[in-house]
Order: sequence, then structure tokens, then C-alpha cells
Amino acid sequence: MTHLSRGDAGSGGSRSPLIEPGAVDVAAYLTEKGALVDAFLDERLPAADSGPGKLHEAIRYCVFARGKRFRPALAIATCEAFHGRTEAVLPAAAAIELIHVSSLVHDDLPCMDDADLRRGKPSCHRAYGEALAVLVGDWLLAFPFEILSCPSMGALLRPEQCCITGQEIARSVCSSGIVAGQVADLEAERRQIGLDELQRLHVHKTGALIRAAVRCGLVAAGVPFADLDAHARFAEQLGLAFQVADDILDVTADEATLGKPVGADNANNKSTYVSLLGLDGARRVAEETAAQAHALLTELPPGSDPSVLHALVDFVVGRGS
Amino acid sequence: MTHLSRGDAGSGGSRSPLIEPGAVDVAAYLTEKGALVDAFLDERLPAADSGPGKLHEAIRYCVFARGKRFRPALAIATCEAFHGRTEAVLPAAAAIELIHVSSLVHDDLPCMDDADLRRGKPSCHRAYGEALAVLVGDWLLAFPFEILSCPSMGALLRPEQCCITGQEIARSVCSSGIVAGQVADLEAERRQIGLDELQRLHVHKTGALIRAAVRCGLVAAGVPFADLDAHARFAEQLGLAFQVADDILDVTADEATLGKPVGADNANNKSTYVSLLGLDGARRVAEETAAQAHALLTELPPGSDPSVLHALVDFVVGRGS
Repeated sequence: MTHLSRGDAGSGGSRSPLIEPGAVDVAAYLTEKGALVDAFLDERLPAADSGPGKLHEAIRYCVFARGKRFRPALAIATCEAFHGRTEAVLPAAAAIELIHVSSLVHDDLPCMDDADLRRGKPSCHRAYGEALAVLVGDWLLAFPFEILSCPSMGALLRPEQCCITGQEIARSVCSSGIVAGQVADLEAERRQIGLDELQRLHVHKTGALIRAAVRCGLVAAGVPFADLDAHARFAEQLGLAFQVADDILDVTADEATLGKPVGADNANNKSTYVSLLGLDGARRVAEETAAQAHALLTELPPGSDPSVLHALVDFVVGRGS
Repeated sequence: MTHLSRGDAGSGGSRSPLIEPGAVDVAAYLTEKGALVDAFLDERLPAADSGPGKLHEAIRYCVFARGKRFRPALAIATCEAFHGRTEAVLPAAAAIELIHVSSLVHDDLPCMDDADLRRGKPSCHRAYGEALAVLVGDWLLAFPFEILSCPSMGALLRPEQCCITGQEIARSVCSSGIVAGQVADLEAERRQIGLDELQRLHVHKTGALIRAAVRCGLVAAGVPFADLDAHARFAEQLGLAFQVADDILDVTADEATLGKPVGADNANNKSTYVSLLGLDGARRVAEETAAQAHALLTELPPGSDPSVLHALVDFVVGRGS
């Protein structure tokens, strides 16, 4: 079992005792799988100049903005770790990215975070107006379920696998997912919240879709439904590590890297891991949660190959280091 | 084959040569099936006082506002017309109502139609604020796919029936559905549009979900997927009749009946069947499309019993007469 953070083999050994350099180039993996997801979406999204008004142009503007494609890559890596076929998980991976983009479009709205910049470009409502941004977000929230149910998936997955995939993704949106997390986030702007509440918020807002990515990867690999809970446990730690790293990035990165203004959390009076624990404290939490994710990955059943998953955990924490 | 509009047996004969009084009390049918749908939803929607902020309270506020439950009743009536079990279509029927409510919540937003009143109550954003209204609409758009994929449905439908149901409903939202229709609607406020464009707009905005209701009813009744197109043809005429009747109601009804201000279309400079054809012209279109729907219903295969469907067609046109 070998894994490596973002190709920085030389310094890898000093960051975590679990890192063994040399095996996985995460940047290349994300690029390769991101291209697969983009090609899948490019084939299925309507042409920019078709349809009413600028709906389809705006959809493509948002979907093909610069993005790491981390969630779809995670779904693919999980499927591959259990020797599933990449094509079998591609619809779910693409669906998860669309749900993510939908949530960004709506979160950026003036009545929510009022963000002007997203992924290095004007946010959807800044580019296309508020009404179209609401509708683009709606479209991106429903289209995944068109992809997931399409007969072309039937050749790769059994219908019950399609069903459970749709359910996992829908769950990551509703009361244990993104929407509930965003409501809690808006509530948290009005008052100081503690670490427990912050963590619960992020389990929904960020964690749920990461968890769905892992679970859909397992389903596509043919893992029995009864084993999903056990095998997906590392996803919770990974989701937490991801959010802590995001909070760190918000104060340490530059705008060009981040694709949006730095310090936005602070400007919005948001409680973050950094505001509650300080920068060093937040870094410690990121490392601890990453270590737990690594440990849970070592408990996956014999025969599975979680080397890319280990590397993705390191990548997530490495972003904020 | 007998059918009757809204229980007004006495005057029925004068409205359409197809109406044979005495068999179906549509008001009672809508009440009965609406209660089934409401009970199904009440069991599955989170408790109002659970969850973050007022999310679940607002969801229930919108879902349990006064509504005719026409779309779910249509799904149920279609399933029953083909001797399917009501329980088998109930998840799809409820899902379709939630999608409808979601679209109302987002359409009412200040950046769209800016409506203060909906179903006789303050619209969601007036009652709970704009940010929560966006998120309530998102929740209502995703939760249907949780319902549709849940294992409890598996006992009633085969997984492939669940899949195709999800796809039909997702399609009614995206590029041939509600979202595309609403974009076209917003575009149409900026300029005068012709009858063809108005009809195309409403095929998406109103027709798609009505069509999905019929198709999901057919699927739940076990109609082979290859027969869906043929058997659902009446849904297109019904959808058109529904919209024409809505346009007529907007100028003829009172606010208490409508649950929102009358004359809103005119105030918003919207092209409607009434503004393009006059009140009498619109009524003629409503009657012609209803007659076509009735004719298509008579072509359904022997053994089916479309009496309630005939009555629903009359009900739809009767609303605007």
C-alpha cells in the first residue's frame, strides 16, 4: 500500500508517518479522471446555443469553470479501489459534480453569500443575472437524476444499483446534506457557534457529498449494499479533513489559487476551524482527521487497493498545509 | 365510458358533446386522492421542529398550503385507469407534487415573479426570507428522488420501474421541462410573443409535469415502457388545456378562489392565451384541446377504464369556464 501527496515526493516523508513516496501522482490522477468526467458531461449537456434564453450557455459556463473535480475523482478512485469499472461509476461521478456546482451557484446568490467570484470567474448571477442563476442551479440539481436513470446506465449497472445511487445522491442534498448544511451555515452567521456545532454543520454541508461519492463508488464496484456503511467510514474523516483544509486555505491561499477572494469567511463573520482553534490548531485537526481516514482505509477488506484513496487523503490535507 | 365535470351534472350536457353526466364526482376524487398524497407526505417529511433553523417548518408550510393536488391525482387516475394499484403510484404522485411546489417557491422569488401570495398564504420568501426560500425549493427538488429510490418502493415496483419513474420526473424539470419553460417565460416578459412560442413555452412550463404524472401512472400500472408514448398522448392536450384555463382564470376568478392576486399576468406584461386571442378565443382553444384529449382517451387499449381521466379533462377546462 503506497501513496503520495500531490507529487511532492521529496518532502512527503516529513509530513506524515503514513506517507510512502513514489506511487501515486494525485495531480495527474485528478487531471486524468477530471478529463473523463468533463468528456462525459460535454457529451450530455445541451449545446450552449440551444434552448431558451441563455440557459444552456450559463449551465456550461458554470460546469466547465475551473474545478478540481475532486468529488468525481473520489467516486472513481473508490470504485477502482474495489476493482470496479471506471465507466460504471462515471454517471454517478458526473452527477455528483453537477450537484456540487448547483450548490455553488445557489450559495453565491445575493440572498446567500453574495459572492462575485467563483472558480476564478464572475459567479453565475454576476454573469447571467439572478433569475437565471436560480434556474441554472435548479437544472443542475435535477439533471443528475436524468443521467442516473438513463437506459445507457443499464448496460453497466443493475437497476437496483441505479436506484440506490440516485438515493445516495438525493440524500446528500436534503436533510442530512447540502441544503441542511447551508441553512445551518446561514444560522451560524448570526451568532458564534462552538466546535461541535461547526462539525455537525460541515458533516452536512461538505461531508455529505463526499460521503455520497465514496458510497456511489462502492455501489458501482458491486460492493453489497449491506457493506456500504462499513466500507465508507473513511469518507466521514475525509470530509472533515477537507473542510478544515478549506478553512485554512481561506486565510493562507492567494486569490488566484483559490478562485475567489481570500478571507471571505472572516469578512462574513463565519465561525471556522481557524477562528475557533487558530491556524496551528486547525492544522492539527486536519492532520488528525487525515490520520484517522488513513487508519480506516487500512481496514478495508483484503483484495481492495486503496493506494489512490490514501493519496487523495494526503492531497486534501496538503492543500491547506 | 362515463365521465362528469366537477359534480355539476345538471349543466354538464351543455358544455361538451362528450360529457355524459352521472359517473364521476371529480371534487370528491381530488379530495380523496389528495388526502392519500398528503398522508404519504406527512409520514415522510421531517417534523417541522426538527433540523436546522426553520428549514423543515418552511417545507411543511409550502407543501401543506391549500393545493388542488391535481398532478398527483392525475398520476393516480392514470394508474387506476390501467388497473394498477394506488399504492404503487403514490411515491411518484407525491414526488410530482413536491417538484411542483418547488417550482412555485422559486418562481415566486423576488428575482422571478416577485409574488407575495401563494395558495392563499404569504409566499415562502415572504414568510421565511429569500435565502431559506431558495433552499426550501432545492430541498423539494431533490427529496422526490429520495422517495423514488427508497427500498420501500421496491416492494411495489421493480427497480427498473423506479429508475424510469425517476427519469421521467427529472426530465420534467430540465431542458424539456419546468426550468426551460420558466426561462422562456422570463424571456417572454421582455417582448410580445406569438401563439406558437406561447404554446411551446407552456408545453415545457406546465405540460411537462402533467405529462410526467401520466407517464409515471402508466409505469406504476405495469404498462410496457414501449407503450408509454402512445398511451400518454392525451397528456399533451390536457397540459395545454390546463394552461389555457389558467390564463382564463387569471382574468375571471376572484383572489380568494385563485389564492393569489388576479390579473397578475397582465400586470407583468405576460403574453397569455387571453391577451393573444381574447377571452372567447381562449375559451374556444380550451374546449378544442379538451375535445382532443377526450378523443385520445377513447383510443386507449380495450380493458382500460379512462372514465376518471375524462372527468379530469372536463374539470380542467371547467375551472376556466
